[in-house]
Formats: sequence, C-alpha cells, structure tokens
Amino acid sequence: MQENTDPFDTTIAYQALTRLARHPFDLTIKGAITAERIHTMQASGAGLSLLYAFERVNDLIMKELFELAAERHALEQMQAMQNGEIVNIIHGYDSEKRAVQHTALRDVFDNNKPTTEIREAVKKELTKLKEFIQKVDTERRFSEMILIGIGGSELGPKALFQGLAFYQRTDRKVHFIGNIDPDDVALTLRAANLAETLVVVVSKSGTTLETATNEAFVRDAFIKEGLDPCKQFISVTMPNTPMDDPKRYLRCFHMWDSIGGRYSATSMVGGLLLSFGVGYDAFMELLRGAHDMDRIATLSDPRQNLPLLAALLGIWRRNFLNMPTVAVIPYTTVLSRFPAHLQQLDMESNGKRIDKEGRAVSFETSPIIWGEPGTNAQHSFYQSIHQGTTRVPIEFIAFATQQDSLDFEWKGTSSQEKLLANVMAQAVALATGQQNANPNKVFPGNTPSSLLMGKKLTPYTLGSLLAYYEHKVAFQGFIWGINSFDQEGVQLGKVLADRFITLYRAAHGKGEAEAFPMGESLLNFVQNVR
Amino acid sequence: MQENTDPFDTTIAYQALTRLARHPFDLTIKGAITAERIHTMQASGAGLSLLYAFERVNDLIMKELFELAAERHALEQMQAMQNGEIVNIIHGYDSEKRAVQHTALRDVFDNNKPTTEIREAVKKELTKLKEFIQKVDTERRFSEMILIGIGGSELGPKALFQGLAFYQRTDRKVHFIGNIDPDDVALTLRAANLAETLVVVVSKSGTTLETATNEAFVRDAFIKEGLDPCKQFISVTMPNTPMDDPKRYLRCFHMWDSIGGRYSATSMVGGLLLSFGVGYDAFMELLRGAHDMDRIATLSDPRQNLPLLAALLGIWRRNFLNMPTVAVIPYTTVLSRFPAHLQQLDMESNGKRIDKEGRAVSFETSPIIWGEPGTNAQHSFYQSIHQGTTRVPIEFIAFATQQDSLDFEWKGTSSQEKLLANVMAQAVALATGQQNANPNKVFPGNTPSSLLMGKKLTPYTLGSLLAYYEHKVAFQGFIWGINSFDQEGVQLGKVLADRFITLYRAAHGKGEAEAFPMGESLLNFVQNVR
Repeated sequence: MQENTDPFDTTIAYQALTRLARHPFDLTIKGAITAERIHTMQASGAGLSLLYAFERVNDLIMKELFELAAERHALEQMQAMQNGEIVNIIHGYDSEKRAVQHTALRDVFDNNKPTTEIREAVKKELTKLKEFIQKVDTERRFSEMILIGIGGSELGPKALFQGLAFYQRTDRKVHFIGNIDPDDVALTLRAANLAETLVVVVSKSGTTLETATNEAFVRDAFIKEGLDPCKQFISVTMPNTPMDDPKRYLRCFHMWDSIGGRYSATSMVGGLLLSFGVGYDAFMELLRGAHDMDRIATLSDPRQNLPLLAALLGIWRRNFLNMPTVAVIPYTTVLSRFPAHLQQLDMESNGKRIDKEGRAVSFETSPIIWGEPGTNAQHSFYQSIHQGTTRVPIEFIAFATQQDSLDFEWKGTSSQEKLLANVMAQAVALATGQQNANPNKVFPGNTPSSLLMGKKLTPYTLGSLLAYYEHKVAFQGFIWGINSFDQEGVQLGKVLADRFITLYRAAHGKGEAEAFPMGESLLNFVQNVR
Repeated sequence: MQENTDPFDTTIAYQALTRLARHPFDLTIKGAITAERIHTMQASGAGLSLLYAFERVNDLIMKELFELAAERHALEQMQAMQNGEIVNIIHGYDSEKRAVQHTALRDVFDNNKPTTEIREAVKKELTKLKEFIQKVDTERRFSEMILIGIGGSELGPKALFQGLAFYQRTDRKVHFIGNIDPDDVALTLRAANLAETLVVVVSKSGTTLETATNEAFVRDAFIKEGLDPCKQFISVTMPNTPMDDPKRYLRCFHMWDSIGGRYSATSMVGGLLLSFGVGYDAFMELLRGAHDMDRIATLSDPRQNLPLLAALLGIWRRNFLNMPTVAVIPYTTVLSRFPAHLQQLDMESNGKRIDKEGRAVSFETSPIIWGEPGTNAQHSFYQSIHQGTTRVPIEFIAFATQQDSLDFEWKGTSSQEKLLANVMAQAVALATGQQNANPNKVFPGNTPSSLLMGKKLTPYTLGSLLAYYEHKVAFQGFIWGINSFDQEGVQLGKVLADRFITLYRAAHGKGEAEAFPMGESLLNFVQNVR
C-alpha cells in the first residue's frame, strides 16, 4: 500500500496550508457569498448533495487541500482498506494488525465481481438472516426484540432504527439494553412482553463486562417467567467464541475481527434489528445506499468524492483554523440520535495521540463531535455559537421532503418549508454576522458550516449518510497518518474497574481486597454517600 | 448591589491564578491522590456530595479561587439575584433590565418569611395547579399530555420527567413537540389518543414561531377529529398576552418576564408536566430540593457552597487550564437527557462575548457542554478522552442506590456495584494515566474530573441537582461579569428565517420576494435537491 509515513505536519501541503490559514476566506465581507460560489461549491452522489459555499475556503485553499490528500495518498489508503489490506496497524509495535472490512458487508450487489472470502461469508450471513426473518414473519411468535450490546453495538443500530421511524413495522417493538446500570435493565423488563421477545446479544469476543452481565440478568428474568432463554436468545459474535454456541442460542450470527463495533451497523448487528423492526428489504436498501457511497469514496476526482471533501474541510477547520469541536445538527427529528453515533464513530476512531509509526503527534486529531436536532438547537446552545467565545463549525444535515405525508400550511408556508428556511437562515447568519451600535446585538459571523442534503430520508439515503461519515472519518485518519481502527484508550478504565469490583467483593467477604492507591478511600467516599 | 465592574481578567486574583496555572496540581505524580485529599476535598448539602480530589487544584489554588469569588462579589450578586434585584442588564445600553426570579418559584416553604409580590403570584399558581390536577385526577377524562414548547420549555421538563422514570404514573403518557419539523408533530399524533389528551402550550410571549405553528397544527388535528381544542388546551404564558385567554384555553397558567425559558423547569412549565405525569407531591418535593440548594448557594463559606465550588473549579479549567469543553456524564440511565438540558442552561446563559459593561471580553466564557450516560460513554468517546489531543474535563454524576429494587448479582457483585466501580475507575484512570513501552498503551493522565453523588435519585435530589447547575452557571456569569440571563444571539437567525419564509411564499405566488444577498441562489440549491 502506498503511504506517506512522514508526520502529517511535516508535509509540503501542511506548510502551504499553514500560510494560507493566516488569511482564510472571510465570509463576512459584503458580497463574499456569491451565487457562483453556491453553484460551484457543491457535489452530489448516492442521494446526497454537499454544499460547502459557507466554509472558509476558496479555490486556492481547496486546491491545496487536494494537494494534501494526494501527498498523504488518501485515496490509495481508502482503496487499500476496501481491498482488504491490513490498515489497522501501528508499525514497529504490538498492535491489532488487521484488515478493516466494513465495506465488504455491503459489497454484495455485483454478481460479476470475483469473489473473496469475506464477501462469501457476508453473503452467507445475509442468507441466514433472510431465512430467519422469513421464519419469524411466518411463525408470528415474536413481536418484540431486545438488543443487548454497548457502544457500537447500540449507538449505530439505535440511530438507524430511529432514523427509519416512519418505516418501522407498527406490529413490532424494539428495546435496547446497553448500560451496566440495573435500571436500564429494569426499564426494559417493565416494558417488554418476554414471552414474545427475541433477545439479540452482541459481543465480538463475548467478554464485554456490561453485555455479559446484562445477558445473565435478562436470562435470569426469562427463567423466572418460566421461559427457556435458549429458544429466544440469538448471538452475534465471532466464529468459535463461547457465544457461538447453538446449544445456548436459537441462532448464532457471525461478525469478524475486521469489523469494529463502531463500524458494525451494516453487519448482522444492524441487520437483525432493522430486518426485524423495519424489514429485510429496507435493510438491503440501506446496504445499497452505503455501498454506493463506498464507491464514491474511491473516486479519484476529489471534487466528486463527497467523504474526501468532508474530511478535507474538517481538517482545514481543525488543524488550520484551530477549532476544537464540530456540531452536527440534523434538521430532522428522526435523526436526533445520529450525532451520538457520529460522536463515537469519530472520537473513538480518531481520538488518538500517536501516529501509525508510534510517534506522539504534534497536531490535533479528532475534534469533539456533538449535536442536537434543529430547530430545537436554535433555542438551546445557538446563543453560544453566534455570540460565544469558542468558534464552533456546524455540519448541517437536511432533507427536502418530510417523512410523513402530514404537513400543515400556516401563514402561507408549510412547516417543512419553515424548517428548511431555518437551516438556510442559520448558514447565512453564522457566515455573515451583523454589526450594530449595541455591542450585545453584534454577531461576529465568519463561522463556517456545510450543508448535506438529500431529497428524502429513506433506507437508501440513510445508508449513504452512514457510509459518508464512516469514510469522512477514515479519510481524516489516513491523512493524519493515525490508526483509526483500534481503541487502546478504553483498556485502562477496564483494568481499574476490575480492581474496584474486587474491592466491592472484598467488602462482601467474597474476595480479597487488592489495595491500590486511593482505592479504599474512594470506595469509602462512595459508600459513605450511600 | 455590590459589583466589581472591572474586566474579569484585570483582577488581582486573575493575575495570581495565571501564575499558579503555570504549575497546576499534577495528578500523575505517584501518591498525588491521597486519602487525606479524598477526605478533605469534598462538600455536602441538599442530598448531594461533591468530591473534587481529582481536580487539578491544591489548597493554594483553592484559596486563590476563593479570593477570586470574593473580589468579584460572587456571593453578593447571588444574594441580589435571589432578593429580586435587577441582574439581567447591560449597563449603558438598551437591554432587558429585569430581575431574575426562578429561585422565587420554590421559595414557598417558609410561612414566616415576609411576603413579596412574586412569591404571592407563585403561590397562587401552585394553588391553581394543585386544584387543576386534583380535578384531572378525579374526573379521569385525561390520560395523556402533549407539551408544545421549544428550548427551555422542553429540554428541562423532559430531562426531569425522564429522570423520574421510576416515579412516573403508569396510567399516564406524556409526549413532547418542539421542532418545527412536521414529522415531530406526525410522530406524536400517531402515538397519542387525542380524545384523552391535554395539550400544554408554552410560550412566554406567544410569538415563538415553532410553538405557534405547532399549536395551530395540533389544534387543526383536534378539530379534524371533532374535538374542541378550547376544552383540552392549556396555556403557560405571561399575564395579558394573547395566550392568556380563557376563551381559547381550558386553563391559563402564568409565568413572568423574570423567568427565563432555561430557568423555567420549576415554573408551571415543569409543574403541569410533572404533576400530571408523576404527581403534584413529587413536584413539590422537587421544589423543596431546589429550594434547599438555593439556600446553599448563599452560604458565605465557599467550602460549603457547592454551586460556588463547582463554578470556581469550572473557571479554573476554562480560563486557566484552557479547556474548551466539559463533558457531563451521569452514571445513571434515567438522566440520559440531563446533559442536553445543561447544554442549553450553560451555553445559552454564558455563551457571551461582551461583559455587563458592554465591553468585548478578552477571555473565554461558556465552554461547550456535552455528554452521554456512563458506562455507555466508556464504549463510545472515552477513547478520545483518554488518548486524544484535546483535554476534556469530566463532571461525573452518580447515585449510590439504583432506582428500581431489581438488581442482579453476578460473579460476586451487583450491577449497581459494577456501575459505581466504573465511575471510580474512570476518575482514577483519567487522573493518573499509565506509562508503557508501547506508545499506543500510554495514557497521559492529568485529566481532571469531579464526582457529584447522592444517596438516590429522588424528586428531592433531582430538584437539588437542577438548582446546583443553575447556580453553578449563575456564579460563573457573576464572576466573569457577563449577563447570564439574556439571549440576544438567537435574534439574527429569526430575522433571516423570516426572509427565507418570505422567499418561499413568493415562490407560491403568495407574497413578495424580498431579495437579499445569496438568498435566491441558496433557495435554488435547496429546491434543486428536492
């Protein structure tokens, strides 16, 4: 694989961009946002259009960002990832050393393509899924599903399921249990009718503390109701783990080491949930949308490559305009949990402090990703975005048409038109600002935003949107030269949690207290509050 | 009122703290976190305990932070606010010039206290509320409620209602409509049984675009079902607005100019929702918890004044350790939407760029507030918090006891114990970090956190928690010398949205297009996507 192993901030393009960043494009100058800008600074594909006329870039800056992508071999790395080469690696140190194959999960639409091991395995799982769902539909034994999984096993599927609110089957209910918090389980057990419930347990390794505990918790509840968990529990795990056991599960579905949790929404994790709650065909449409965006991510013309454009604009804001956060604001209620998925996707992938050569980086990596739906957010934190001291760029997401046929015309426009008027108004207001003799009515402006739009949110465009962000994140990792596909940063907390659990056990007289600095006194604090 | 009108960053304490910030307390030094630190760096009151042993402070730094509070007359300003003096003001410029009276909403427990106009008005509304809820309980006509309101009228009440998940009446359902998005209305209309539904419409002025549109939308749906909205709609508004109209509403409840939307959760907005969905007595308990924290906020010993401590620790991180964001992580599932309320509370209050003298500030104000519940967040963005490049302090919230009696012992500990073990483990891991020969397994540590704990989340402790953050935010505003109680930054977006709405109307042939820069071409982009 072609790779440039120099540190990101020693590249030629980085130097050029640093110079350009002394005078980034000024959005507040009268006439800065021209019709021509709006007509030319956009790109479309796989049902989505990206408008970046409100970013602080001009042709010269874009040209240099494209140079950066070329110098970092961003496209070659994307191609290598999609070809199954080993991209999850830190050179010279013990690391995961794996391929990254979530794009293979949806590369199932071209029958002429030469086959690969992973694509065969994926097709086999899809066939199993289809048959299983058909059986469930025919037998009518199950009307509810509980998904037990945490992090990527929950956030992505939940965001997608909510995104398809208007496509959901009204005769099915879906619940999620992620947290080790017993109340998370209690709330679900109150709401679910266990006799008619399928439980999907997701753990690649089968050792996730929360998931293993919650599975045992829920199995116990089934047994107490006289139900046999083995006939209602399904596992999604790697082949040959303890959870890959047809004696304990009604069905065992597979995922693989090369599918990270945060990239697993298009695996059987999302597949089971969405096929049950929405429909198998809808899930396949979602895969098709994702696959089309996967192909766009390999286009060599950066002006047509939507995720690459998004990645470069993000790097411009992060590394050259020094903005520590990005707000993602979907102007559609059904995507209200999509920012939480992106938060994990981006921050777990690119929240790294060393590059792929094991060197501590001297530049910023993943920004803080956060957001709430608009227009709600306008009545919440937009005050700070317009007049606060920390500059926050916004990635708007919107759809031209609402989901439901129901709309309401009031004072000459529909609610959907008012919604779109608001997203446009915010892009303009953030960019241009406003002067005023009263300092409290001054808006400095010059806050960049981009607008990603589709005709309508469908399973297809939702898949495309998912993959758009997956590849935006991957491209940023490729360009920074970091490994976006491991997560060593979650380990220390696990080790220390085990020590506190041991202290609790000792307090019960059931184990040995392993003294460690401040452990006992902290436990005392927590227990004295109790 | 005693006030120091000098810019925050010209004070004596600011200079001293700047010097101290060159060598902030180092959490990674072996033995840095002592038992003594844990025993002394804590404060308790109104059912909550704050542990700040994991912040990057020592006695010297704390002493200087207390000096800062004194120099800025923080306590005097808090007292002035609670006494009803005019604290919402920009001196020398046109501004709102009002008292800020949300603490009066819960100052109803001491019958010996001399009366004031606002407290009489509050008691009158509480009596109206009690009678109304009794009538609803007796008549059994209504089993559902739709709350129409946006921003503060939605986020706070929703977070509180979810926080009381285990106290909710199981015979009542509650829905929220905030967004102008027609799908937000459609989803609610699908779920609600309008014949048994009370609709609460919240708008102080009656002119909020979203709320007025959604009220008309929902009234239309009632009429189409042959129902009379005037017999099922309730308003919460200021006296004498168009919404204060008993002909159009079954009941009209009042709020006042001195109650900001983001501070209205303990007004009739939260009152109607919580009394209906949980119970009037629970709402009164919540008020009592908030009132007890209001009194703690006036304690002159800063070591006992929990909100002041929290404010000073936040200022230390924001202005001296230069951290642009704060993650608020409740280790309890029922508080999952509480961070969204705090996001508005803090960022709309303190996301300001001028001080109360109308001067542009040369220091940072409100950080970006964000967060998701733990342990879920550990499997999401904690990677970046442990090993990313942007330092993110965490405010943990936890409770010793779970809500439901249901818990599950597995491998020697309960789920609740595992939950608490995790919050403790994260505080330690973030603070101490870890060295390793493999650079990918290095945790730099030195990330500060505080832990706010209660015995159990009840209506009382939830009220206390709400007020704790209200006063933390207010104290930070007092110390920075900014006005935390207006929100001029939301105006420009409203004006520009009206212009785009006019363009849409023109496109329908129903109005005149008001041309403004880039408006037409942006509308074309949005319409061509369509």
